[in-house]
Amino acid sequence: VREGDGRKALAAVRRWPVADIVALLMSLRSKDARRLIEIMPDETGLGVLSEIDPHLHALLAEEETKAKFRKLLRKLDQDRAIRLLDEMPRPYALDLIEGHPHAAELREALETNDDLASAHMRRGILTAREDGTIGEIIADIRARSEEIDRLERVYVVDHARHLKGSVRLRDLILYDDDTPVVQVMQPPRFFVTAETDQEDVLALATKYNIQNLAVVDGEGRLLGGIAAQELREISSEEAKEDMLLMGGVSPEASEFDGPVRIVRSRLPWILLGLIGSGLSASVIGSFETALTEAAILASFIPVVMGTAGNVGVQASTMSIQAIGSGVEWSGDFLPRLGRELLGAAINGVVVGAVVGLLVLFIGPSIGVERAQHLALTCAAALLIVTMVAGSYGALVPFILKKLKLDPAVATGIFINTANDVFGVLIFFTVASLIYF
Amino acid sequence: VREGDGRKALAAVRRWPVADIVALLMSLRSKDARRLIEIMPDETGLGVLSEIDPHLHALLAEEETKAKFRKLLRKLDQDRAIRLLDEMPRPYALDLIEGHPHAAELREALETNDDLASAHMRRGILTAREDGTIGEIIADIRARSEEIDRLERVYVVDHARHLKGSVRLRDLILYDDDTPVVQVMQPPRFFVTAETDQEDVLALATKYNIQNLAVVDGEGRLLGGIAAQELREISSEEAKEDMLLMGGVSPEASEFDGPVRIVRSRLPWILLGLIGSGLSASVIGSFETALTEAAILASFIPVVMGTAGNVGVQASTMSIQAIGSGVEWSGDFLPRLGRELLGAAINGVVVGAVVGLLVLFIGPSIGVERAQHLALTCAAALLIVTMVAGSYGALVPFILKKLKLDPAVATGIFINTANDVFGVLIFFTVASLIYF
Repeated sequence: VREGDGRKALAAVRRWPVADIVALLMSLRSKDARRLIEIMPDETGLGVLSEIDPHLHALLAEEETKAKFRKLLRKLDQDRAIRLLDEMPRPYALDLIEGHPHAAELREALETNDDLASAHMRRGILTAREDGTIGEIIADIRARSEEIDRLERVYVVDHARHLKGSVRLRDLILYDDDTPVVQVMQPPRFFVTAETDQEDVLALATKYNIQNLAVVDGEGRLLGGIAAQELREISSEEAKEDMLLMGGVSPEASEFDGPVRIVRSRLPWILLGLIGSGLSASVIGSFETALTEAAILASFIPVVMGTAGNVGVQASTMSIQAIGSGVEWSGDFLPRLGRELLGAAINGVVVGAVVGLLVLFIGPSIGVERAQHLALTCAAALLIVTMVAGSYGALVPFILKKLKLDPAVATGIFINTANDVFGVLIFFTVASLIYF
Repeated sequence: VREGDGRKALAAVRRWPVADIVALLMSLRSKDARRLIEIMPDETGLGVLSEIDPHLHALLAEEETKAKFRKLLRKLDQDRAIRLLDEMPRPYALDLIEGHPHAAELREALETNDDLASAHMRRGILTAREDGTIGEIIADIRARSEEIDRLERVYVVDHARHLKGSVRLRDLILYDDDTPVVQVMQPPRFFVTAETDQEDVLALATKYNIQNLAVVDGEGRLLGGIAAQELREISSEEAKEDMLLMGGVSPEASEFDGPVRIVRSRLPWILLGLIGSGLSASVIGSFETALTEAAILASFIPVVMGTAGNVGVQASTMSIQAIGSGVEWSGDFLPRLGRELLGAAINGVVVGAVVGLLVLFIGPSIGVERAQHLALTCAAALLIVTMVAGSYGALVPFILKKLKLDPAVATGIFINTANDVFGVLIFFTVASLIYF
């Protein structure tokens, strides 16, 4: 296929699902991929354009290919065009818009904040007038069947597009054609404004277990709808953001970033971490004399820091998870903290005992002096560290939440840093009490 | 409300959305909550039962409340009953099943592996015979309108329930009643078996951008369907699992765990981490003599370990994200690694320069000897550490993926441990070359 006759390749590929064609294009060298796209019929090209990987766009940034894509873009309805452009690298998307009849609207939609309801809503939804009938809705669906790519709840509006309610699809089937819309319509219980944050949209949908939300403007006029597919997109975007923040990467990072964007999304977090480890370093520095006497203590720095880090991250992960699933802990806060503390205490006793016994039994054979004191120091320090890191990790996300900050940021840097500092501070304090 | 007349409270609560009633119950003391549930009418109780928080179940584990819930459970269709029971703590769910007419089936469904397609599919889906007509499907929907709580694609089967295709809802509206099903039905392009892993279900749906999947048994007989809502559930479960694994918590952990389950889901990871930090400890131990001479070096252990940890976790988070969004990097692997390395090198130069300059300028004033050598040691070590941790972190998830292991495990423990060990090893090796 790669070198062969274009026509033959095309015939073979034509009947594949679009996702497989895209995969093929990715695996071809860019020259061949470009040629294949150029000879593609419009319909296939349109499919490919709407599914294509952002990485491929960069590969295909040649004038000829762009001209073809511009032509295809003009054939898409506005919803699909925006969705598509939104997934591309911004400069390339703005480039493609040039010369489009709705260029201004597309540009405005592209510049909407990605985290708002308006960035996710579908504009081309079905609407019905409140003085209409079921039969009129069905006639409308039939007339527009070509352009509608999904059927969902039909929103009911008045003459000025104010949201009045909605009609479920099933009711279109259950009721006769001459049933008035007002008779079967449900009141508009759940709606959001275009400026609602996507996180709140998702929380609302999850809490009340709903699949369809109307999006209205400040005056209650219907702008669009968010349905199951959009909710799934929002939910995976939110999960991605949380994961990136927990991993210490800015949430706008993408797997297609070049070195400059890699540096921009990661370096600030590394430098923040540096401040934290600078604090740990100064704690250790203040015990320099003790270390000169007993350099063996330095070996336990990674053990204490590692354990504090793991325990803290575990606890904060669970808290972030709890917050994400809508738990507020109003009445339940103290029992929960109690369970966390008890769990941390048990873990601390086990970890302390394991490390203490290892020091006690292996220590003397590798020349460790005063092994009993060292064992006791390690055991006590690890128990305290585990309990402190556990409760700190469990609490910080809730505190950040109260301060209206994203709790996922907590695990990324703050928890790690605080645990390192607490870890070495507790360890050396215990050591100075027991070991010296 | 809390102490007042039950009837009055009920009248007030009656018209609330179920989620708000549950929130109220959570905030009440358990005695009051129990009383409120007991006097609730069946319909409200059913709603509450299906939305209720697992935590509340434990609160309500009294015989009277259980008897009421058992009665309500019998009124649910099987799909909803299973969904509901599946969200409860297992022992309590098994307890509630007692005496249910379909106890055996419910128990079997509960014991299905949660990660398989069968655990997510809806059983009570609409089906049509391939020799039927559109009108027959509509009549069926009308007859069953009470029990069906969502309308979706109608699957077409033959006399032995073999999957033959599906009819889109819109086609029920677009075509006349006497249109034969075979004429409008679409071929069964996308289906999974009951044993398909939920991760693969999600990957398939995402790749081909589909909202409806049929679930069949080994002989191609239709068992159920997975639609947008189920896909959203799977996607948030997978995201939750990834996040927990990255946080070093076993994926079956829940925010309602008591201390024993907290210990069980976290202690193994802490102990694994201990092995890793034991390795770092022995690396440091082998440089004990050097440390006795220059205890100041110990201060830089947290700086090196912290930076290595952050850089490694960042890189592996991005790789996990890339794998999650379906990237395989077949042809693209080397350019990607190149970008990562270049990004890491830039970060390393900046971090190395910052720390090096700090040591150079502040060091002498706090009595650090041979500050220039120490500054050079830190700068060189941090540059190398950043590049090693960056490429290691980026690669490990892909290697785990190739070995059919969950890449998210990587970040949780392996990356952290490896980075600690590499960090101190590189630092002390560089120190012994430059500083001594």
